[in-house]
Amino acid sequence: MKKIDMLTPIGILIGISMVVFGVISSGGMSGFLAFIDVPSILIVLGGVFGTLCVSFPLKQLKNMGRVGKQAFQSKEINVEEIVGTFVHLSEKARREGLLSLEAELEQIDDSFVKKGILLAIDGVEPEMIRELLEAEIAAVEERHTRGRSMFEKAGDYAPAWGMIGTLVGLVLMLMLKSLNTPSSLGPNMAIALLTTFYGALLSNLFFQPIAAKLAGKTEHELFVKEVIIEGVIGLQAGQKSRFVQAKLKVFAPVEKRKLEEKREHVREA
Amino acid sequence: MKKIDMLTPIGILIGISMVVFGVISSGGMSGFLAFIDVPSILIVLGGVFGTLCVSFPLKQLKNMGRVGKQAFQSKEINVEEIVGTFVHLSEKARREGLLSLEAELEQIDDSFVKKGILLAIDGVEPEMIRELLEAEIAAVEERHTRGRSMFEKAGDYAPAWGMIGTLVGLVLMLMLKSLNTPSSLGPNMAIALLTTFYGALLSNLFFQPIAAKLAGKTEHELFVKEVIIEGVIGLQAGQKSRFVQAKLKVFAPVEKRKLEEKREHVREA
Amino acid sequence: MKKIDMLTPIGILIGISMVVFGVISSGGMSGFLAFIDVPSILIVLGGVFGTLCVSFPLKQLKNMGRVGKQAFQSKEINVEEIVGTFVHLSEKARREGLLSLEAELEQIDDSFVKKGILLAIDGVEPEMIRELLEAEIAAVEERHTRGRSMFEKAGDYAPAWGMIGTLVGLVLMLMLKSLNTPSSLGPNMAIALLTTFYGALLSNLFFQPIAAKLAGKTEHELFVKEVIIEGVIGLQAGQKSRFVQAKLKVFAPVEKRKLEEKREHVREA
Amino acid sequence: MKKIDMLTPIGILIGISMVVFGVISSGGMSGFLAFIDVPSILIVLGGVFGTLCVSFPLKQLKNMGRVGKQAFQSKEINVEEIVGTFVHLSEKARREGLLSLEAELEQIDDSFVKKGILLAIDGVEPEMIRELLEAEIAAVEERHTRGRSMFEKAGDYAPAWGMIGTLVGLVLMLMLKSLNTPSSLGPNMAIALLTTFYGALLSNLFFQPIAAKLAGKTEHELFVKEVIIEGVIGLQAGQKSRFVQAKLKVFAPVEKRKLEEKREHVREA
Amino acid sequence: MKKIDMLTPIGILIGISMVVFGVISSGGMSGFLAFIDVPSILIVLGGVFGTLCVSFPLKQLKNMGRVGKQAFQSKEINVEEIVGTFVHLSEKARREGLLSLEAELEQIDDSFVKKGILLAIDGVEPEMIRELLEAEIAAVEERHTRGRSMFEKAGDYAPAWGMIGTLVGLVLMLMLKSLNTPSSLGPNMAIALLTTFYGALLSNLFFQPIAAKLAGKTEHELFVKEVIIEGVIGLQAGQKSRFVQAKLKVFAPVEKRKLEEKREHVREA
Repeated sequence: MKKIDMLTPIGILIGISMVVFGVISSGGMSGFLAFIDVPSILIVLGGVFGTLCVSFPLKQLKNMGRVGKQAFQSKEINVEEIVGTFVHLSEKARREGLLSLEAELEQIDDSFVKKGILLAIDGVEPEMIRELLEAEIAAVEERHTRGRSMFEKAGDYAPAWGMIGTLVGLVLMLMLKSLNTPSSLGPNMAIALLTTFYGALLSNLFFQPIAAKLAGKTEHELFVKEVIIEGVIGLQAGQKSRFVQAKLKVFAPVEKRKLEEKREHVREA
Repeated sequence: MKKIDMLTPIGILIGISMVVFGVISSGGMSGFLAFIDVPSILIVLGGVFGTLCVSFPLKQLKNMGRVGKQAFQSKEINVEEIVGTFVHLSEKARREGLLSLEAELEQIDDSFVKKGILLAIDGVEPEMIRELLEAEIAAVEERHTRGRSMFEKAGDYAPAWGMIGTLVGLVLMLMLKSLNTPSSLGPNMAIALLTTFYGALLSNLFFQPIAAKLAGKTEHELFVKEVIIEGVIGLQAGQKSRFVQAKLKVFAPVEKRKLEEKREHVREA
Repeated sequence: MKKIDMLTPIGILIGISMVVFGVISSGGMSGFLAFIDVPSILIVLGGVFGTLCVSFPLKQLKNMGRVGKQAFQSKEINVEEIVGTFVHLSEKARREGLLSLEAELEQIDDSFVKKGILLAIDGVEPEMIRELLEAEIAAVEERHTRGRSMFEKAGDYAPAWGMIGTLVGLVLMLMLKSLNTPSSLGPNMAIALLTTFYGALLSNLFFQPIAAKLAGKTEHELFVKEVIIEGVIGLQAGQKSRFVQAKLKVFAPVEKRKLEEKREHVREA
Repeated sequence: MKKIDMLTPIGILIGISMVVFGVISSGGMSGFLAFIDVPSILIVLGGVFGTLCVSFPLKQLKNMGRVGKQAFQSKEINVEEIVGTFVHLSEKARREGLLSLEAELEQIDDSFVKKGILLAIDGVEPEMIRELLEAEIAAVEERHTRGRSMFEKAGDYAPAWGMIGTLVGLVLMLMLKSLNTPSSLGPNMAIALLTTFYGALLSNLFFQPIAAKLAGKTEHELFVKEVIIEGVIGLQAGQKSRFVQAKLKVFAPVEKRKLEEKREHVREA
Repeated sequence: MKKIDMLTPIGILIGISMVVFGVISSGGMSGFLAFIDVPSILIVLGGVFGTLCVSFPLKQLKNMGRVGKQAFQSKEINVEEIVGTFVHLSEKARREGLLSLEAELEQIDDSFVKKGILLAIDGVEPEMIRELLEAEIAAVEERHTRGRSMFEKAGDYAPAWGMIGTLVGLVLMLMLKSLNTPSSLGPNMAIALLTTFYGALLSNLFFQPIAAKLAGKTEHELFVKEVIIEGVIGLQAGQKSRFVQAKLKVFAPVEKRKLEEKREHVREA
């Protein structure tokens, strides 16, 4: 169930709007045009791209687009739903035995949940189930960390290339132009500063925040998977179903838990 | 028992007063007005907000206000009181049995203490109690870390947007204005520097210190919860009540302990 | 099976092209020549080299070239192939006994796989095999980390030496030249800035990205070796061959796994 | 046995002398007076104080003075003396039994040693003694880390407030003064730079080094406490007294050990 | 067997040569003299020294010279030799018993190896030997880390004091001199920049690289000690001598191992 994470494009739009507003409010339309300098953009983008080519293997670089797209998607993994599923399954397993869960498998979308329950039904020992699923989590984490590192590195390299571009501009300006036309010193200096501006904007509005959002998504996904492992293990243990429920409930977000606790109070009264 | 943590607003007030004092003492009232530039404020605040939108999911961003408010509140969790409670409870449990604690539950406010004691009364095995309560602590820590990270990131992004704003100002100044009116170079440069000033102030007076205070509060809360776990486990073990007392006393702050030790000396003499 | 990792030289070429393009597009050919200043290059390279001599022992420094060359090579370790090998071997071992694997050894190139299987055939206890192979992995990791640290340090020192060179240039310019010939201030300042430019370029296009690529290669190699250990241990355990297969499959990259799962669906239907 | 750690005030004096020497050697007495600007000092100190108020709870801030004072005190914990005490005690315990140690308790100053020996005499199980004393060490470490963090944060905030003050000065100078009296540009710029100077000096001569000295003292204290735990545990184990001695001797500083080894050689000959 | 690590002084010489070459190539001999400014050198060195006095206890500071000297010495610990020794000893122990090793002790220089073998001969249990020797390693590591931290801190403080010196120079220049003699602005600015230059050079050519070399030496020494522990433990276990050999061989550097493997191939053929 992939949905668009509207906040990512909206945030980028807000950031760009602020810059455009700042430029036009004190520089007008002509000021705005002064900020579009294709060679400067090319130096920063091209430099960052070149550095990324040196830093990462081809197989990983090819994934950069696909990884970045995930910052614009929201996977909507609902912890409460999963907790509910396991509470339901553990009750059924207690009443009708573990094998009865086979019929429920079709209604489960998540392949990780499915895999875990299948292992439980197959009677694989708990430590082995945990080991196997933890290995899968570790592999997912490693894959995500590697993907995210491209954006983190790009966030480091963009300001550096901005500075390299500005140094190029400054050296040229001081070396060649200021001798003949001192009046051009201002505009030349402005162009030199543009690459620093692009580098800072790229790093602070794109690369770094996208890496942060990807990190948050990964953390959430891993957390959900940990909950699932606890659920599967508890499911198989069977008898301790109340304990499983208590343990999984720990993971539900605060607000929901408060609501639930209130409801419990009402029920108790 | 939530009280206001007066120190947070007082600290912010002191910081702002210092800046205002610095401005007025050498620039007078006209100097003060020079520091209020709405577009500059908008660029920094809007830019930081945009970047936060890209960096965090909606669910988390919505909590930012609520999380920040906690830096202005003081929860007053008294470690000594909790140690006292457990010493009292462990004596009662030793005399009258664990079940006798049920009557005491009503007088306990803290839901974490309550939960722990209930588990102990229920006869849940010690390792399971520890596992369950540790899982709750881990969940609390994760939630707080995520909340705090918004302020930490804002503290990183604010100076960056201050610099972006200053670059915009510098480029415009060099490109357009200096050509015609060299006398306006000073004031234009001043306006360009304002965003750097706002970014530095926001980061160093708001975002970073608030994140620090939140971190301190979280650490204290987790520490109190760890003490509670030790208390609950010791309570259930029962016979080793003197050991529990000794262990919990370790956690009481230094001054109190010294006072207590003096009193013990007096008693012994 | 060493192949050339074309991406490393291509990335460096792209980075240099961007700089050259930036220089020539606004400075022309004479601008380009202004960027070649042998003394400046010597100061930065020589300074970095001197600092590396102080930082590392001779034995390690001698390896720097050999280590750096690895960033230009791609070793092509195929995880799927290894997983396949172990699935095949574990089936054979189950049918014909562990000793039957001796005949297969000749077809295996990887010395680490060979060593592991030999230990398994010899009947060395599983914990000992694991200990021995983990020790080998730790030694590899330590060796690689040490090699990579030379490039990481060089990436730190290059900008520092760029700044030292610029300070030398600035002091000389302010002290001696500006007094007599104010018109030479621009070109002298330009030359002073060149070392900062070289330092930034060396650090951000060579040393840092090469260290990043080496880190990625090391991580992949260690990961493959971990898979191999799991395979060897599983091979020896024999009976749990389906579990081994499941566990190793976890490590296969996502795309391949999806393909495989599709195929399985087809087979099941 | 608290003594004054003369090195701390001497170090601060040396640092200040260097600055005063630098100022007077090239600026004379009038130069010296130029560096005393009360508003600038107030902005930096007040700003840092305000930020610390936001960052830490009142209870902790009140301790800042007491914590800082510890950087000027030296506690003189002698590891060799403690090792000697334990070797002596372990011999006595082996000859006359653990209970005979009660008579020795009065001659021991250190409350941690006393507590440990009391627990050993009481016959508390070794794992429990270790657990209890480790908990005390953890509590000490946490308290110290919290105290030190105020100085570390102040060391971070001081340069930031120096920069904020300089930005205030620069904006005012550019905005108001340079228009009318260009000749005052120099002195105004100088005043603006003073806050950066104060911030850098405060951070690098006071806050950061004091935090470093506190860290060293904490580390040493924890190390001594670890030695004491080993001694207490070994004392109780009794029979392995030679092993205890060997183990504790490991912790004695190098020079002393060499001396001792020489003496042993002489004795053996 | 201490030898001089020629690379350290050679590296410092190369670094200084680069600076001198840079200065003389564009400033001539008079330029060179401009870089020697005793007050500037005093401010940076004295400031760093003062800060170190505040940061470290006297006992540690006194060792700074001795610690630094180690960066100029090379201890020549040969891993292969140690591996060879243990292979030889383990064969002898298997043939003639552990006690037969007593005769070999005299030929062993390394006190750590000696100590370990003595413990093995004495029949101390393996876990105890490991615990004792690991404690010694931990103590060595702690001692080295503490010694090295003085150079690391000096590497942090040197640029800070360089900046403090430059701020002093700038303030004085702007405040006093520029009013009367604008022509002296250049040279005065040059002198102000000299402290930044000294700070950068001290940090990047002395303190930081020396700390790096010390870290490498410590790491190698600890690694050798770990190998020795494995050897001693394996020696005592006796019967598994082939396994010990295999395990120790892991630690031998790559090139040697390849040579050895080739030789083995030849022997097998």
